[in-house]
Amino acid sequence: MAYHRQSRIEFNHCDPAGIVFYPRYYEMVNSVIENFFRDEIDWPFEAMMAQGIGVPTARIETDFRAPSRLGDLLDWELVVTKLGRASATFRITALSAGAARIEVIQTLVWLGPGHRPAPWPETVRPRLAAHLTEAA
Amino acid sequence: MAYHRQSRIEFNHCDPAGIVFYPRYYEMVNSVIENFFRDEIDWPFEAMMAQGIGVPTARIETDFRAPSRLGDLLDWELVVTKLGRASATFRITALSAGAARIEVIQTLVWLGPGHRPAPWPETVRPRLAAHLTEAA
Amino acid sequence: MAYHRQSRIEFNHCDPAGIVFYPRYYEMVNSVIENFFRDEIDWPFEAMMAQGIGVPTARIETDFRAPSRLGDLLDWELVVTKLGRASATFRITALSAGAARIEVIQTLVWLGPGHRPAPWPETVRPRLAAHLTEAA
Amino acid sequence: MAYHRQSRIEFNHCDPAGIVFYPRYYEMVNSVIENFFRDEIDWPFEAMMAQGIGVPTARIETDFRAPSRLGDLLDWELVVTKLGRASATFRITALSAGAARIEVIQTLVWLGPGHRPAPWPETVRPRLAAHLTEAA
Repeated sequence: MAYHRQSRIEFNHCDPAGIVFYPRYYEMVNSVIENFFRDEIDWPFEAMMAQGIGVPTARIETDFRAPSRLGDLLDWELVVTKLGRASATFRITALSAGAARIEVIQTLVWLGPGHRPAPWPETVRPRLAAHLTEAA
Repeated sequence: MAYHRQSRIEFNHCDPAGIVFYPRYYEMVNSVIENFFRDEIDWPFEAMMAQGIGVPTARIETDFRAPSRLGDLLDWELVVTKLGRASATFRITALSAGAARIEVIQTLVWLGPGHRPAPWPETVRPRLAAHLTEAA
Repeated sequence: MAYHRQSRIEFNHCDPAGIVFYPRYYEMVNSVIENFFRDEIDWPFEAMMAQGIGVPTARIETDFRAPSRLGDLLDWELVVTKLGRASATFRITALSAGAARIEVIQTLVWLGPGHRPAPWPETVRPRLAAHLTEAA
Repeated sequence: MAYHRQSRIEFNHCDPAGIVFYPRYYEMVNSVIENFFRDEIDWPFEAMMAQGIGVPTARIETDFRAPSRLGDLLDWELVVTKLGRASATFRITALSAGAARIEVIQTLVWLGPGHRPAPWPETVRPRLAAHLTEAA
């Protein structure tokens, strides 16, 4: 049910303290969501762009549990916690060697053609629903 | 009481939809906090680094109110909403032409020499307290 | 004749060695060019975008003279070294306390409406020419 | 002889014109070099950092051959074109569907313990030499 992806902490993510500079985490989080849409929803961002469609972020909550260091491998997990008519909330967590690094709760809204708010397309909704957590 | 700073949305902040890519907002938010410590707390980050001190982020909540576009001027405002023994919570908002773009609630913790949790130094606490909101 | 701008090295520019991560220099260089077009050519990038115009980079040569550190103030200088029919070459240097940090030779091409190669507009050429170095 | 790696152009790499913002290419180039050191030289950057060793960039020349777009797959190729006593020059090219996107000639210097210039270690030199092009 959860979508998984792995990434390594590279030089460009790290700050002078030798740990991930937190804005870089959001580039990783966006990449996880982007690849989730590519792999699971079958709607890659370049197709959305070409159709004048977007999925802007409305709200994010993040808990930073422990620092990540250069060379660390992160295991990302994405689940859908809430599926609205035209929005979805994801919980995206990164672990390394089983220990939590960050936990993100992120709400996206679907903007249909012309970037106007619209309900999730019929083809998209069940694919999102397939990643709903039991808790949700 | 509030700390203010202005910045312009430049090419490097914007995504293919022509609006700010949200991870870039966090680079701006970090810059606001960094300059706040430089200007108001008299403890620039390079001095912290040299002393083995840091102010990592423990938690962030962000509401994205409206998109920002290339060339927009953002007016940033920072206030302290909560001052703990070894942590502080800031509310950082960006407006453009008086309308809210994003609102960030961010909690930092103070790591003293050797990056060990420690209470705010005597010199720092009153300077942070000077930016506490009445609401807080 | 030269265009000048100052910027400070902030946390987001620095790598685990505590010096500027070189890809961040190019964000700064792009910002210098972007502000040069805004301030000196009177053609800000948001106006270009709206008109389907662009100034993509064709070639860059960079010499990294000395590392820059967190908190350093950089003095940027831009001159035009070559003005072609539809291209321009800039020399962009950053100094700190009078000592060179990086030197960039960058060639841009002008893409007119519809992103098609086109000669510099009549209004733009003399403004670029005003920043030609004597050496060029 | 050449080292290869593939990467996809993601949302965070692209500018309002829908193509790669060139400073992001340098993040990709650095990642290619970083993984080359990890995979081929057996000296990952986190090990270098821990030993006070670095490989700063002294010079880069880049030709931008054609724009890259959101979703493109890039095939990166790295070869060593010159192996000095304490430096190495790499040619790093990105192709997509066989067509060149960018070509980078980048010279690194080896800084040994304490970040002092030093000859390549005995274990490193032959591994770099194994990637020398015939042309060089």
